[in-house]
Amino acid sequence: MGLVDRERIKLITLQKKIGPALARVDEEFRRITDGDSPLTIDICDHIRQGKSKRFRPTLLLLAAQNDDNAEFADGAITAAASVELVHTATLVHDDFIDEAVTRRGLPSVNVKYGSSAALIMGDYLYSKALHNLCVAGLNRAVELLSRTTVLMSEAEMLQLEHRYDMGISEERYHQIIYQKTASLIENSCRIGASFNERLSAHEEAFGVFGTKTGLVFQITDDIFDYLGDERRLGKPTGQDWEEGRITLPLIAAWRNADPATRKRIGDLADQRDTKVRAEYWSEVKQFVTDFGGVDYAFAQARQYGEEAKSALGPVASGPQKDLLAVAVEYVINRLN
Amino acid sequence: MGLVDRERIKLITLQKKIGPALARVDEEFRRITDGDSPLTIDICDHIRQGKSKRFRPTLLLLAAQNDDNAEFADGAITAAASVELVHTATLVHDDFIDEAVTRRGLPSVNVKYGSSAALIMGDYLYSKALHNLCVAGLNRAVELLSRTTVLMSEAEMLQLEHRYDMGISEERYHQIIYQKTASLIENSCRIGASFNERLSAHEEAFGVFGTKTGLVFQITDDIFDYLGDERRLGKPTGQDWEEGRITLPLIAAWRNADPATRKRIGDLADQRDTKVRAEYWSEVKQFVTDFGGVDYAFAQARQYGEEAKSALGPVASGPQKDLLAVAVEYVINRLN
Repeated sequence: MGLVDRERIKLITLQKKIGPALARVDEEFRRITDGDSPLTIDICDHIRQGKSKRFRPTLLLLAAQNDDNAEFADGAITAAASVELVHTATLVHDDFIDEAVTRRGLPSVNVKYGSSAALIMGDYLYSKALHNLCVAGLNRAVELLSRTTVLMSEAEMLQLEHRYDMGISEERYHQIIYQKTASLIENSCRIGASFNERLSAHEEAFGVFGTKTGLVFQITDDIFDYLGDERRLGKPTGQDWEEGRITLPLIAAWRNADPATRKRIGDLADQRDTKVRAEYWSEVKQFVTDFGGVDYAFAQARQYGEEAKSALGPVASGPQKDLLAVAVEYVINRLN
Repeated sequence: MGLVDRERIKLITLQKKIGPALARVDEEFRRITDGDSPLTIDICDHIRQGKSKRFRPTLLLLAAQNDDNAEFADGAITAAASVELVHTATLVHDDFIDEAVTRRGLPSVNVKYGSSAALIMGDYLYSKALHNLCVAGLNRAVELLSRTTVLMSEAEMLQLEHRYDMGISEERYHQIIYQKTASLIENSCRIGASFNERLSAHEEAFGVFGTKTGLVFQITDDIFDYLGDERRLGKPTGQDWEEGRITLPLIAAWRNADPATRKRIGDLADQRDTKVRAEYWSEVKQFVTDFGGVDYAFAQARQYGEEAKSALGPVASGPQKDLLAVAVEYVINRLN
């Protein structure tokens, strides 16, 4: 059984607890993305065929869950679908920027329908998410999600600026991963808590939980790109290196390296051609492992995971607390 | 004095009446687009260097104007800047789709900074506009603008589907221009009226006024592309034909044409290569004029202009009514 299977099973066990609500989220997602024109309908169908882990809606629902057996409010279902929609919109635009060929085992929108359609589709999904929340009167969710999309687009711009930049600081790396990944997870948790009368006063604590969980999520993703076994992961590794994204494992190894090794890796990092970079992939991968980059990132992810669980200490209790802790464990354990 | 100069003077005369408010809109636009990263700041500076006619903020302010001498509410200024921001975001994305080389006399964002930066920049400007409105508590404006951006992205998708399609119906053409152009002008007027206690009950009438004015705006733009004198207009003509956008003048001429001429034009329209299409531009232009396409579109624009002015009959009065009528005249007279 591969890594992906094992991690999926853990998440699926967790999601079984909120199965009927997730089914309503899927239905709501389908309703919002019904599309008007034949091409929009076709692309929406294509996107829905790719299986999402629905990690953000899951966290939103767990944060919104007041009582183990209570029905979720319609607003929470709409908000959960909207968060997934915003996430999907960013994937469509990111795949264009990264020239990604596949997404969730299917051709990416940019490859199957072209770059113009990918650009328009991202705009469409994002607008649909926000408009639908407005119509439902969920103004707090609109504010939090629009704030997140500002942060996400700024992070994309920063990532563009720091492409191939071996001088990027760990601080800047954290800013980017907070803005591009953690802030949407943070706000999924905040929005969830806002539906929970018992917990809405603790929105801030849920925000910290979501932020830390989001940082773990992105750091583990970045580690996978160095450490992962392509066969077990089900996706290629080395993409970040090839496309010039300098992530935590490389930043840490670079800091630890001796001058001669640094010089060598710096020369490789100056190469801008993806194919040339791909030729040096195994050397760079070895470098990152040898100079402790993977270990450093791993330790940091664990630390954030602990902080995420601690953040919930004073607020969540009983089954809700346990399930949220399992969600963090799921993210961490993707590494084992 | 060229056509552009003459029309600008008319608009400028109108805008002088609300000069201090427009200066506040410019300042608010600058505040919202301050940017965080060096690249974002650089692109925002570049965009602001291009001179916008600020037609949408002008209409919003005219609709919001209660008393000739009253100060505008801060919310109206913020909303006017946000409408301009959404418009700017769509221009940045449109230029990417159309592979436009220039915008407002400067290199387009896609040409100067690349397609990834153009995609991110559009997302950034759009998110900033909506988030800023949320923070200001302008929920009605958020709802109307998010609805418009859904319609605009659907229109872009329809336009992509009907590229090179000589069979496009006049009805579908109207759907596209309503969604891509008129709906933002409609909602600028609606949002403006919502700030005007005396008129907010008439939001619907302002909506009709904005819709009709927006249709005139796009139809006159489409006529320019056939009729315009490049030297006087300050921009090249024939772009719609070259890029396969089938607009009202061509749709009408095609309907009026005899079978032999139709066959000839149909063969030309099947060409997909921009350079090949450019070679046939003067023939197509002549066809559209000869078969009454320009006259038909012109008559329709005038008709919508009358309907726009009529829509305001029962609601606006005094100087406000006069100024809004001048705004419609400005759009119509771009043709004379």
